[in-house]
Amino acid sequence: MALIVQKYGGTSVADCDRIKNVVRRVISTKKKGNDVVVVLSAMAGQTNHLISLAKEMQEFPNPRELDVLLSTGEQVTIALFCMASREMGVEAVSFLGHQIPIRTDDAHGRARIADIDSDKLRTVLDKGQIAVVAGFQGVTDYGDITTLGRGGSDTTAVAVAVALDADLCEIYTDVEGVYSTDPNICSDARKLEKISYEEMLEMASLGAKVLEIRSVEFAMRYCMPLHVRSSFTDTPGTMVVKEDATMENILVSGVTYSRDEARITLSRVPDRPGIAAAIFKPISDAGMVVDMIIQNTRAGELTDMTFTVPRGDYHQTMELVKRVAGEIGAEKVAGDDNIAKVSIVGVGMRNHSGVAGKMFQILADHGINVLMISTSEIKISCIIEEKFTELAVRALHEGFELEKGPAV
Amino acid sequence: MALIVQKYGGTSVADCDRIKNVVRRVISTKKKGNDVVVVLSAMAGQTNHLISLAKEMQEFPNPRELDVLLSTGEQVTIALFCMASREMGVEAVSFLGHQIPIRTDDAHGRARIADIDSDKLRTVLDKGQIAVVAGFQGVTDYGDITTLGRGGSDTTAVAVAVALDADLCEIYTDVEGVYSTDPNICSDARKLEKISYEEMLEMASLGAKVLEIRSVEFAMRYCMPLHVRSSFTDTPGTMVVKEDATMENILVSGVTYSRDEARITLSRVPDRPGIAAAIFKPISDAGMVVDMIIQNTRAGELTDMTFTVPRGDYHQTMELVKRVAGEIGAEKVAGDDNIAKVSIVGVGMRNHSGVAGKMFQILADHGINVLMISTSEIKISCIIEEKFTELAVRALHEGFELEKGPAV
Repeated sequence: MALIVQKYGGTSVADCDRIKNVVRRVISTKKKGNDVVVVLSAMAGQTNHLISLAKEMQEFPNPRELDVLLSTGEQVTIALFCMASREMGVEAVSFLGHQIPIRTDDAHGRARIADIDSDKLRTVLDKGQIAVVAGFQGVTDYGDITTLGRGGSDTTAVAVAVALDADLCEIYTDVEGVYSTDPNICSDARKLEKISYEEMLEMASLGAKVLEIRSVEFAMRYCMPLHVRSSFTDTPGTMVVKEDATMENILVSGVTYSRDEARITLSRVPDRPGIAAAIFKPISDAGMVVDMIIQNTRAGELTDMTFTVPRGDYHQTMELVKRVAGEIGAEKVAGDDNIAKVSIVGVGMRNHSGVAGKMFQILADHGINVLMISTSEIKISCIIEEKFTELAVRALHEGFELEKGPAV
Repeated sequence: MALIVQKYGGTSVADCDRIKNVVRRVISTKKKGNDVVVVLSAMAGQTNHLISLAKEMQEFPNPRELDVLLSTGEQVTIALFCMASREMGVEAVSFLGHQIPIRTDDAHGRARIADIDSDKLRTVLDKGQIAVVAGFQGVTDYGDITTLGRGGSDTTAVAVAVALDADLCEIYTDVEGVYSTDPNICSDARKLEKISYEEMLEMASLGAKVLEIRSVEFAMRYCMPLHVRSSFTDTPGTMVVKEDATMENILVSGVTYSRDEARITLSRVPDRPGIAAAIFKPISDAGMVVDMIIQNTRAGELTDMTFTVPRGDYHQTMELVKRVAGEIGAEKVAGDDNIAKVSIVGVGMRNHSGVAGKMFQILADHGINVLMISTSEIKISCIIEEKFTELAVRALHEGFELEKGPAV
């Protein structure tokens, strides 16, 4: 008998019939002898509907009130779930963030969980009932309702699993698991049987939208095994677990990409201490996040500085940088928002050389010019022209033979 | 400068535009130098929509979960209100039942308010902000969400007004006040300028659906003046206040009616002690409420017993009574659900004789037979055939010259 936390996303609870299907799934898990805690999202589309109502009332909705509004979405699904479960003869009890409580800081719209009291949940489980938790929401010490941001229900699920010392946290979604790359781009994309937390983090932050990144960090910190799977089939999905020895045999686990990129270059910047700070301080003060930064030293005392920002921040950043360029005496500012980032991810890279070289060769063989490179222990990212995105993803997926699966 | 609690019902907040209108009204009250606490209902239709969702999930929705579901309605309106208010430049802060808290017992769906902590509301008012409270909902000591039943937002408003020792509680609705009778039946119906709590209680319980009855009881107990008025006009409505000397000059304040009646008669019941208990105990045990009871002694040791119940309980009550009739040896059980109750209400009756006689005469003059009569200090009710309802209401309204207003 295990204690399992199951999280179902918005498409899995999109209407009354789907909620009933989810109830059947949960009851079946319970009837196998497991204790089950269910974490639910709002019905698909509901959060967007509420946001549009909010914007009708206030151009930039007050964050505290927006959280009061948005948290109703999950409140509706947990209540409906418990009713359906009782109709099928299994007692289920719903819990809102403030009832457990799931305590957070007061950063409305992107709150972080501080702690979770597991007493009420345990009481319900001890009675043989199903505990049903509203995802995405928490409460401050003052009693204000907070939300955790997009995908926050994943984080709720993992945090609840950790608080209860659960055996497993299952994340049910509308895809069958984590793929070696985007199946929409590459028909050979293969569902991964398992993947390490670190790889999942790189995949998530690089654009694979299966799991919310904070939930993976949380799971990694507490070694909570995650099972990402579909709520529409019984096929096993992808286990996200602690790195083990077999994983190192796999050179590359996945290929990811992101089109949400823009590049800015300052040419012939005087190369003196403090110049990077002069450029990047105003950008971060404006709340924009710089991703890659590359500095090329030229002959003499001049240098070129190139960096990338999310595409949505491109124009605002350009304005800022042009002002700074004048102040620090840079010769020219150039920008480009027709770029994309393709990356390969794999813990096997740590112990194998030549992976980067192979990646560049594959791209070159397909006539794709690499504009910028950045690497970490377990990933290599290349900035390329946006029009080559699909070609690059397919070429890398094929070149590293990802369609073949683990070559153990 | 006064402290005013304003409650707006579902039709007043039915969509975003109407909510904005309500915000303008509240801000205008505030700009006149008043502190304002706003209590809101769910958007019109929302509660019914949620109930239909619930019934899709469970034939008899679990009361605790139903309250979790239904309480989202008010949560949405208070958040939207606060956003709109901020957009118009006035800070407003929303409060859910559990945030204040409004503590209730755990009778889900018809909870009673135990107490209200006014600290958080006062803090907000002291900052010059508008406090916006979700109507209809509360919280148990355990942290479970409760709702107060249909019309519960009126009760929330009065209870909050009492807790804050407010100067006035305004109930905004879609009618202009309390009328001398139903304007849909009698075009001469006149809006009453003021009415006593006692009269309002009789009017409310007799079928005038302007104010929830518990809110009037609450207001009466704490002498909180109520102002029932329309949110769509600026016309003053009806003040519901403590009885004063001028009111006694008014013989009859209003004529009300109810079609929600059914009558059951047991004939030739043996007239011995305990017989009434034998009849009515099983009915009340089954949760049904008997209204009028009339016992006529016949010659000898037999009596007739007639009583009324809500029409929805008619068939179930008949079943019960037939069983009891056999046990106690009553000769016959007859029933009739084609009846209605018409009543006249007025504190002036206390000091004036002949009101009842005049009522019966008016009905007789119109060929309306009186089937049952019941009286209290300030009201007289007659059971008549249902088909005479409108005729009786119009006749009494005209006969007591209610269209003329106070004859002070």
